[in-house]
Amino acid sequence: MPRGITLIVALAALMCSSLMATASGEDLPDGMKPWWPSRYGIADQIGTLNEITPERVQAAVKLVRQGRIIDLGRVLDENTPKFPGRYWHQTTDVTAPYTNLRRTDTVGKGWGKNQINWITEIQAGTFQVGTQLDSIGHIQIGDRLYNGWTTREVVEPWGLNRFGMETIPPIVTRGVLVDVAGYKQVERLPKGYVISNADVQGALAQQSVAIHPGDAVLFHTGWGALWESRHDEFLSGEPGPGMEVVRWLYEKRIAITGADTWSYGPVPGEDPERPFLVPQTMYVKMGLFGLENLATEELARKQVYEFLFVLTHAKTRGSTAAVVAPAALY
Amino acid sequence: MPRGITLIVALAALMCSSLMATASGEDLPDGMKPWWPSRYGIADQIGTLNEITPERVQAAVKLVRQGRIIDLGRVLDENTPKFPGRYWHQTTDVTAPYTNLRRTDTVGKGWGKNQINWITEIQAGTFQVGTQLDSIGHIQIGDRLYNGWTTREVVEPWGLNRFGMETIPPIVTRGVLVDVAGYKQVERLPKGYVISNADVQGALAQQSVAIHPGDAVLFHTGWGALWESRHDEFLSGEPGPGMEVVRWLYEKRIAITGADTWSYGPVPGEDPERPFLVPQTMYVKMGLFGLENLATEELARKQVYEFLFVLTHAKTRGSTAAVVAPAALY
Amino acid sequence: MPRGITLIVALAALMCSSLMATASGEDLPDGMKPWWPSRYGIADQIGTLNEITPERVQAAVKLVRQGRIIDLGRVLDENTPKFPGRYWHQTTDVTAPYTNLRRTDTVGKGWGKNQINWITEIQAGTFQVGTQLDSIGHIQIGDRLYNGWTTREVVEPWGLNRFGMETIPPIVTRGVLVDVAGYKQVERLPKGYVISNADVQGALAQQSVAIHPGDAVLFHTGWGALWESRHDEFLSGEPGPGMEVVRWLYEKRIAITGADTWSYGPVPGEDPERPFLVPQTMYVKMGLFGLENLATEELARKQVYEFLFVLTHAKTRGSTAAVVAPAALY
Amino acid sequence: MPRGITLIVALAALMCSSLMATASGEDLPDGMKPWWPSRYGIADQIGTLNEITPERVQAAVKLVRQGRIIDLGRVLDENTPKFPGRYWHQTTDVTAPYTNLRRTDTVGKGWGKNQINWITEIQAGTFQVGTQLDSIGHIQIGDRLYNGWTTREVVEPWGLNRFGMETIPPIVTRGVLVDVAGYKQVERLPKGYVISNADVQGALAQQSVAIHPGDAVLFHTGWGALWESRHDEFLSGEPGPGMEVVRWLYEKRIAITGADTWSYGPVPGEDPERPFLVPQTMYVKMGLFGLENLATEELARKQVYEFLFVLTHAKTRGSTAAVVAPAALY
Repeated sequence: MPRGITLIVALAALMCSSLMATASGEDLPDGMKPWWPSRYGIADQIGTLNEITPERVQAAVKLVRQGRIIDLGRVLDENTPKFPGRYWHQTTDVTAPYTNLRRTDTVGKGWGKNQINWITEIQAGTFQVGTQLDSIGHIQIGDRLYNGWTTREVVEPWGLNRFGMETIPPIVTRGVLVDVAGYKQVERLPKGYVISNADVQGALAQQSVAIHPGDAVLFHTGWGALWESRHDEFLSGEPGPGMEVVRWLYEKRIAITGADTWSYGPVPGEDPERPFLVPQTMYVKMGLFGLENLATEELARKQVYEFLFVLTHAKTRGSTAAVVAPAALY
Repeated sequence: MPRGITLIVALAALMCSSLMATASGEDLPDGMKPWWPSRYGIADQIGTLNEITPERVQAAVKLVRQGRIIDLGRVLDENTPKFPGRYWHQTTDVTAPYTNLRRTDTVGKGWGKNQINWITEIQAGTFQVGTQLDSIGHIQIGDRLYNGWTTREVVEPWGLNRFGMETIPPIVTRGVLVDVAGYKQVERLPKGYVISNADVQGALAQQSVAIHPGDAVLFHTGWGALWESRHDEFLSGEPGPGMEVVRWLYEKRIAITGADTWSYGPVPGEDPERPFLVPQTMYVKMGLFGLENLATEELARKQVYEFLFVLTHAKTRGSTAAVVAPAALY
Repeated sequence: MPRGITLIVALAALMCSSLMATASGEDLPDGMKPWWPSRYGIADQIGTLNEITPERVQAAVKLVRQGRIIDLGRVLDENTPKFPGRYWHQTTDVTAPYTNLRRTDTVGKGWGKNQINWITEIQAGTFQVGTQLDSIGHIQIGDRLYNGWTTREVVEPWGLNRFGMETIPPIVTRGVLVDVAGYKQVERLPKGYVISNADVQGALAQQSVAIHPGDAVLFHTGWGALWESRHDEFLSGEPGPGMEVVRWLYEKRIAITGADTWSYGPVPGEDPERPFLVPQTMYVKMGLFGLENLATEELARKQVYEFLFVLTHAKTRGSTAAVVAPAALY
Repeated sequence: MPRGITLIVALAALMCSSLMATASGEDLPDGMKPWWPSRYGIADQIGTLNEITPERVQAAVKLVRQGRIIDLGRVLDENTPKFPGRYWHQTTDVTAPYTNLRRTDTVGKGWGKNQINWITEIQAGTFQVGTQLDSIGHIQIGDRLYNGWTTREVVEPWGLNRFGMETIPPIVTRGVLVDVAGYKQVERLPKGYVISNADVQGALAQQSVAIHPGDAVLFHTGWGALWESRHDEFLSGEPGPGMEVVRWLYEKRIAITGADTWSYGPVPGEDPERPFLVPQTMYVKMGLFGLENLATEELARKQVYEFLFVLTHAKTRGSTAAVVAPAALY
């Protein structure tokens, strides 16, 4: 409770300072104008997830015709490919079977007459690894986030006081796979390939699927086949939707997009002087959510292009991402 | 690939040794007989989740009549109540805004002409905290797990080579809330209260809901109201389903059960000489999955007793639990 | 080797940018002039530790007359008092006794005919806890460090590329205890007490000891008695040497100073508008090293005022501190 | 205080159970007899460090003739070679410069009129890496430690309740380098080379140095030259003192020994069926302390064969090792 009050006061104070900051925007990169308020208002934190309405959820569940589930998450461990500097280590904690033996009511090998023991783990690392859902607070333009918030307003020692993963609701909506690799008749798109609007329209036409507001739009590039065994090549770059595609998806009012690549968007990008411009534009200007390292291959192989997309994630306060494994039901 | 082959060989070797071990079981607690093979066979790893069939999924999605979603997860941070010895710490990593300033193509406050920056986090702790889905490998009887596996066969430095969270599929099925606090007309059941079969049948009758095979059966005890502000009381014990309820649920072939408490089952338990007997029986003997610290209060308040239960989780290899936030759709 | 070359190139680049930055200093707080180059030159990283010459070491070892050792370090664990937000967790890793049982050449309870097993630990936290030696890079004035370096030049994802603990040599020199609590005839100095130059001269005269260049000057305030059992009071403030004392010590060319408090210098400080001014001045302007949470009580009780001070520490690259336990030999 | 009492009670209980366990020893490997009580008594925790008496310290400091110091520690970071499965990660915490900007008394770039900021770090990993001092509790024979203690008596979730690093005093004593590589006139001894007693006696004779009780005896094998750049080769094996050398050192009543290798003793070892027999014998049976990854090359190059050895380390409760950087004064 006291914590709650403290938070309210703190957020009110932050909002005032932000609104003041908003007025000027004179600290922005040359020629750049304030991009806020966002399409969902200056107080919004969930961006394009606002597009998921009860009506759209209701329509989406009707897509489940066979009751089958495809897992879109990859297994994460310390050996899976990671961006330089990011890590993930886990150690099994089997101390309980030792300390339980010292209890006065130990029987045989465990605690109590039921001889109970347990195992846990200690993990250290970042959530910016593996199949992941990013917070839109993960990326900035200079020191500005979505809706014009500044890092000095948002950064806490323990995480972000806005846009943390605890602010993101469960995501259940219509899902669409855009199989660009299949459309281009290649095993995988080459590194740096810029998926164009023509590619997307062509693939959708071939698949006989349309994009609707509130959709989760997933791209199969084939790049994910390198995940398991060719780490260096996998991380050396990637194909992905170009800026025109993302602008079109935003205009179509989709809820979230993702791909089978470690970032989202081509790497190297369309403009070599603007690295990672696609996710930066999505998160900071649009509030459009992104998913990385999706296991799209089974959807593509089974030609499941339309499905119920479900994603629930760990609500860890202030985190910039969650390791996830969304599912597709059809 | 080499890893895959290694795993296959290792698992084959493990299985042989396990089967040999299976034969005797002479290392068990006095008077205890081998509980394996499980209802789902000696090679099974997912226990009661086998009950979720395409037909049941198909039936469950029809329960979504309004398209509304209730979040069943609690926010996790270093201050939320934890079992003694378990911890969770997160630190914001804002080094990128510094190192980006040193790139040769820095413009203003970030990397490139788009001035990109990013923020990540470092986390340390266990997944056995907060709203969580347990692996059935988390608990043992002596040194034996589900299907008779022994800790010496299953424990690796990095986690469990069987029953890790990566083996658990996405869970989408029919959900049922059993509001025992409401049925007993109390704000919350007292500490150590043993929910009886009569309680369950009474509550279900009052709610006009029946339990079906494949269900996710969630109990509202009211104990979760102590989560936010009364940590010591919250952790000092809890009400929960007794042994007869769990046996009945298992016979009904439900898929998973959970409650708004930090463990599952009454604490102190029905038999003071057998601590945590309920989850031990569920995980080790039955392979019945459990959920802890569910936020059931909104379901109870809105009297949503039947819903589509969805749960996707981080597939971290070998972990004994995942921090989760399931959702109920109705 | 490639790493070495990369470092050299990087450091050369940094030095150039720093020298340019040095010229102006126009980014400094109002009325503050550049404090660099330091007394030890613009390229210096070890500040007052330069005062420890072979001659002074040679003289210091002669102070060991009885061959006795006093340990000046406190034991560190997750329960010892820590500054808010800092943490230290350790978990025992006993997985080897399990995995060793799976080796083909296991005999009985361990690996090989010698049945070997081992235990390790996993630790997570910061080195800014317990009895500690600080890097002079730990504190800044605005974004400037010792010798005028800026955070944008020095911060790396993995630590500081200058002033990390690996740059600090082993410290062996003459040690002097200044027992101000004893001089003032109190069990401990009160919170916020500012140790004056008169206090220091009085204590030294009473102890018949003088300060020499190259000395390690340790203060006994008695505050450390609260460490074990009264955490809140211990962390609520502290007595300590005031600004005039630190200036005098710097003029006397001592090598390092420390106290039995969690920071160094009075808290609250002499000027309420300038928090932690004493260590800030020491580290950033003077390059004068500091030690915290020293166990000075045995030295005081035994009236060992002059001794050989020895301190070797973990050379972890880029760290801002090391957990240490210096020793006094007499 | 309550903690203290708890510990005393716990230790008393442990001692009783240990003494009972001691009597039988029937759980030992075939043909192995109880090795306890140790030479220093059943209650001893510091083994051969008991040999460091005030007289020996007093004699050792006289070896400092020039006042010069050689650092025997290697820098540790995430890239330095580590035993498989061990890790060390550090992340810079630069959140304070952000949060300080939100204080009501912020001036310019930091907190207060002195504009203070600070940087810390978060570290995760094990202390069993880099230049390290092992606890004699690190290794076992089956489930037995030094003085016959069993793992079930000693293992706690947070570390070892006996033999943790907090029990080891500062180590200051006479140091001797045995330059076996120099004696054998090779750059480095080959992998698996077993240093014999003849080698040791020959080297000592050539160096005109004798071993005394209480000594720190360090071996230069030349293997450490692979540390920086040839990780795989470095970790693939090592030369080291054989069993007869260790027995002789123990009979000579030295205090501690170490080498420029990642373990101590030849790998592969003298008896292929008894892995790591040398350190196992040292720690478990003798209570003889060991040091790993020492930077002995400067001592060898300068032919400093006799010196004052100083080692102070982090007293982290229950740890099995400390990352250290001892020093040699001459």
